[in-house]
Amino acid sequence: MTKEKYGLIEKYMLSCMDDSAHDREHVYRVLYNALEIADSEENVDYDLLICACLLHDIGRREQFDNPKLCHALVGGDKAYGFLVSQGFSEDYAEKVRACIKTHRFRKNSPPESLEAKILFDADKIDAAGAMGVARTLVYKGIVGEVLYSLNSDGTVSDGTNDITPSFFQEYKYKLEKIYSGFMTKRGAEIAENRRRHAVDFYRGMLEEVKESCENGADKLNRHIEK
Amino acid sequence: MTKEKYGLIEKYMLSCMDDSAHDREHVYRVLYNALEIADSEENVDYDLLICACLLHDIGRREQFDNPKLCHALVGGDKAYGFLVSQGFSEDYAEKVRACIKTHRFRKNSPPESLEAKILFDADKIDAAGAMGVARTLVYKGIVGEVLYSLNSDGTVSDGTNDITPSFFQEYKYKLEKIYSGFMTKRGAEIAENRRRHAVDFYRGMLEEVKESCENGADKLNRHIEK
Repeated sequence: MTKEKYGLIEKYMLSCMDDSAHDREHVYRVLYNALEIADSEENVDYDLLICACLLHDIGRREQFDNPKLCHALVGGDKAYGFLVSQGFSEDYAEKVRACIKTHRFRKNSPPESLEAKILFDADKIDAAGAMGVARTLVYKGIVGEVLYSLNSDGTVSDGTNDITPSFFQEYKYKLEKIYSGFMTKRGAEIAENRRRHAVDFYRGMLEEVKESCENGADKLNRHIEK
Repeated sequence: MTKEKYGLIEKYMLSCMDDSAHDREHVYRVLYNALEIADSEENVDYDLLICACLLHDIGRREQFDNPKLCHALVGGDKAYGFLVSQGFSEDYAEKVRACIKTHRFRKNSPPESLEAKILFDADKIDAAGAMGVARTLVYKGIVGEVLYSLNSDGTVSDGTNDITPSFFQEYKYKLEKIYSGFMTKRGAEIAENRRRHAVDFYRGMLEEVKESCENGADKLNRHIEK
């Protein structure tokens, strides 16, 4: 990829990120994770991979404004339109779109090309380990969701079977399960090496919340006159 | 404290918290931490302690809107005005104000009463361990600050000497140092027991960010034509 082409695509990516520092940081980590994975694969189309990584989350704003939209589908279409408008071939733009559309794996549309598989894994790595925890907590701040929910008996829920969105709920529903389903050997390996950081943090935080909250209501009741 | 009085103060506290789920959760944890510490102290005025804990952060909104204001000073004055308006004695309202004003210890105004010291420690515990990390990350999401900064040579800064606000910067400037300066034995003990959760998370995350980012730019440059 030429320096000019990289600059053009990067500039468009940044223009789609508004002022989200967190989205921008994520895009570069995904790009770098992808290049690391690519080193262990053969016949990688680096031009396609770099372009798809840079543009993979440009549909985030649309999904944030309307949660019914899928940022992968919106982003794929936006990338296609941008690339064609800049004079790149329809064939190239279509390959980029396919990578972006399948980076958020849903049952019916697995990543197909090698570059799509690498992008998928590179993005998933950023939801593993301490970084996955950090990004989830940042998101809970942005959308104003709680850290944990209390069960009806006043005990702290560990997130399992929770209906109310919370950090513990997302840990149990998503972060804890993220280590399976990688599509490259190197991607799975990087994520696995980070798993302990997330597990230890979740356990430690649950222990602290239980220590602070579970006896609190009883202690309080002893000082409240009926 | 009567059930009616508790309900009155709690209702006022909730009205000051807008829709901040995180502030609300924090207030109850501080209250419960304070009751745990109080169990190891003698001659605690539980009525004063409970009231001061419930109201300790009611100046947060004002500080968020105008960072030059100190939420401890604003909150103390708001609490005083509210309590006097509800018919509580000026002496009682003044004691509550003193606790709230000194819960955010600045050099010239250390907490003086036993209840002020307990509130100070109970609040500080919530900035220790995994919970301190979680609350800081949530806040970085709310205010849109980055997770880490890069040094001029492209390496990842661990936060030391950083000027730009980030999660790593706040870890180094504040979270890492929070374990000294507790005013009660039990408070210091609870925080110390949680320290490892924060240290391990920070180290793990720094390792991950370095792994993802530090070789990334070099790898990228190998695929960008000059």
